[in-house]
Amino acid sequence: MVLSTAVLDTVEQICHTVADLHGELTRNELVIWTAGNVSARVPGEDLMVIKPSGVSYDELGAEKMVVTDLYGELVHGSLAPSSDTAAHAYVYRHMPEVGGVVHTHSTYATAWAARGEPIPCVLTMIADEFGGEIPVGPFAMIGDDSIGRGIVETLRGSRSPAVLMRNHGPFTVGKDARSAVKAAVMVEDVARTVHIAHQLGNPMPLKQEDIDRLHERYRNVYGQQEAR
Amino acid sequence: MVLSTAVLDTVEQICHTVADLHGELTRNELVIWTAGNVSARVPGEDLMVIKPSGVSYDELGAEKMVVTDLYGELVHGSLAPSSDTAAHAYVYRHMPEVGGVVHTHSTYATAWAARGEPIPCVLTMIADEFGGEIPVGPFAMIGDDSIGRGIVETLRGSRSPAVLMRNHGPFTVGKDARSAVKAAVMVEDVARTVHIAHQLGNPMPLKQEDIDRLHERYRNVYGQQEAR
Amino acid sequence: MVLSTAVLDTVEQICHTVADLHGELTRNELVIWTAGNVSARVPGEDLMVIKPSGVSYDELGAEKMVVTDLYGELVHGSLAPSSDTAAHAYVYRHMPEVGGVVHTHSTYATAWAARGEPIPCVLTMIADEFGGEIPVGPFAMIGDDSIGRGIVETLRGSRSPAVLMRNHGPFTVGKDARSAVKAAVMVEDVARTVHIAHQLGNPMPLKQEDIDRLHERYRNVYGQQEAR
Amino acid sequence: MVLSTAVLDTVEQICHTVADLHGELTRNELVIWTAGNVSARVPGEDLMVIKPSGVSYDELGAEKMVVTDLYGELVHGSLAPSSDTAAHAYVYRHMPEVGGVVHTHSTYATAWAARGEPIPCVLTMIADEFGGEIPVGPFAMIGDDSIGRGIVETLRGSRSPAVLMRNHGPFTVGKDARSAVKAAVMVEDVARTVHIAHQLGNPMPLKQEDIDRLHERYRNVYGQQEAR
Repeated sequence: MVLSTAVLDTVEQICHTVADLHGELTRNELVIWTAGNVSARVPGEDLMVIKPSGVSYDELGAEKMVVTDLYGELVHGSLAPSSDTAAHAYVYRHMPEVGGVVHTHSTYATAWAARGEPIPCVLTMIADEFGGEIPVGPFAMIGDDSIGRGIVETLRGSRSPAVLMRNHGPFTVGKDARSAVKAAVMVEDVARTVHIAHQLGNPMPLKQEDIDRLHERYRNVYGQQEAR
Repeated sequence: MVLSTAVLDTVEQICHTVADLHGELTRNELVIWTAGNVSARVPGEDLMVIKPSGVSYDELGAEKMVVTDLYGELVHGSLAPSSDTAAHAYVYRHMPEVGGVVHTHSTYATAWAARGEPIPCVLTMIADEFGGEIPVGPFAMIGDDSIGRGIVETLRGSRSPAVLMRNHGPFTVGKDARSAVKAAVMVEDVARTVHIAHQLGNPMPLKQEDIDRLHERYRNVYGQQEAR
Repeated sequence: MVLSTAVLDTVEQICHTVADLHGELTRNELVIWTAGNVSARVPGEDLMVIKPSGVSYDELGAEKMVVTDLYGELVHGSLAPSSDTAAHAYVYRHMPEVGGVVHTHSTYATAWAARGEPIPCVLTMIADEFGGEIPVGPFAMIGDDSIGRGIVETLRGSRSPAVLMRNHGPFTVGKDARSAVKAAVMVEDVARTVHIAHQLGNPMPLKQEDIDRLHERYRNVYGQQEAR
Repeated sequence: MVLSTAVLDTVEQICHTVADLHGELTRNELVIWTAGNVSARVPGEDLMVIKPSGVSYDELGAEKMVVTDLYGELVHGSLAPSSDTAAHAYVYRHMPEVGGVVHTHSTYATAWAARGEPIPCVLTMIADEFGGEIPVGPFAMIGDDSIGRGIVETLRGSRSPAVLMRNHGPFTVGKDARSAVKAAVMVEDVARTVHIAHQLGNPMPLKQEDIDRLHERYRNVYGQQEAR
């Protein structure tokens, strides 16, 4: 597959963005060694940019990123793509509104995933960002479409941009890679806070109508409108 | 509203201070992404300086700060103010002794807030800084006066500069923004220590007279007198 | 009190060492804001070097350190000494083998102190450094000799260089300030590990004879002999 | 023992690698003060490179590393070797496939070791890297062959590159020092996640056949093939 110069320019820009966003994973202590990855859809093309497999975050410049089609076949770049590529690709094929996908094994989110328990919506921050409880997806083997299918089926029934894949860890999506990284940061933060709240008793529930109002407000009012 | 040159000079200085103090929030791991804010009253004016909404801490220079009146209306600056502006403004209107307000979702303090439980005064550090237990405020929706009212009503019956807003997170106040940041750092620290103490049994209580003596001493003896 | 040039040279060197060692407190996350302090005895003099009160660790150069006599009276320097000075001074007066004292409110050690429970000797690292369980000292008011007396009385019946002062936090001692800092780092580390071990059951006990052999070996074999 | 120039060149390179890898121990918060060590076999020689005893990580350049034979006798370098040298040497003598050994007292792994409990295989990441539960080795005194013998006997019955030595801490092995460090990072990460999962209930088990498939795939597919 030969990419046009215009597409190559876009791809290069996205490679820089995706490489930089891996820095947020380490800065927010969501990953160790090479165990997490960010990808981004190339807008208007059936392509995605993703981390190469088994490369440490220190060595992860834009030039190391790889481009695959939406079936995970390498299109550009010389390294083998992440072993989670099939899952990312499945999400892009089946959720056209998604522009970015992130996978980590962040500690507290993975602990909920190990028990197969959703994170209850007991904080305003959860209502804001996730619009309700953060759901659990099925156990699925790594490498084929199983994980992607589990992610898509779980997220379709939810307002949450995050899913806790059972015995594995969280996947998050967003309109772009930065939004998906934000959701990955926030799912770990609320997984930790709610875990800790539960250790000494029970958090007080939020009413569904309050959750709805908070989520609505957050989506429409929060942040700089020009920057969203 | 046109600000005089003298007021603008003061405002500029406060913008620098407030921008820098956000660095203490990240350094002390009280915030993730954009989820926390510091404000300061402009002395002698019905104005406050506050963080803009949804701007990341890395990009938060003095020039990004915004100035509002004490009803949250933008007076100076080009970005939309923090979505918590109404709460900060309400506090400044009703607590004239307060010169700084801080809001975070720091993990352990928010966990106590999720259960709606005050932090008991079982450490000399809590007696020193908070003068007794750290109280819980009501659940309140974001955006209008509800949060501000909850903060003010709760703090009026307490010596504590911190309140744990239910299902939401801590707000702290101080004579200036730096004092409010200090209280935000300390409320998380003691929330964590007391949580951990409770995990394996019960902390031993402090006598009320010891709490009173410690608090009195701390307010009058601790630190460099010229620097307070 | 006028200090001779020779003593002033020694004092200046110690001020540098003590200022630098405060950096280990922050690096090892034992302290927040200004809530911890290191001191060192001036060898051969009835003097000690200690942190000034309420000064943040960022601003803590050698020139900020203060020199007091062993009753806590200021001898050299322009800032008020730490509010824990009386405790440090008492230790130097009553334990001539001690050359350094450290006080923190490090999280896990303080949690054990809040419950008034000693840390049991269930790790080889505890046998090595502490020679047995880490004892609890009495509750004592800040400011007069009570804390110092509690430290000295507790440490006299123990091989441990650390004592957990009830509802307050750990104090550690050493042959010099660096050894006391090392003990402060290690008491928090083992307080955390043993806490976590207890959360899911009971650590297996160590035999007294194994504790004795480990402690003996550590004191005599570990490290570079010329550097001890 | 006189080393040839060719061996000395290899040794120098390994000293650099081993010194740098100690930086991963601190960066991943696996060690405090001087309490952990990395060693590497010198390929084709009965020699190993190891950390000197009691030297802080800040001062740990390649020139400080020491070379011993596989009985722990100093061959090259001026400092005394780590007090864990006998354990490392025993492993190299009895496991010819091992090229690197790491020892830490990392918090969560040591907490499992204190209770004498293996870490169950309830995460895909554990199946990948450890191929099953992470086993516990016997309590053994420091200094002679006891620890080395406990490591070797425990690892022989397991696919895991990590063993939790009772009341002491984890040891990990690998085909080279970098692999052993990776295992040390990952054993702490999964020890923490599984601990946290257990705090609020029970993780769901993985089927043995899924563990086998995940482990097989990870060993053969993950990473850049040329870089393994």
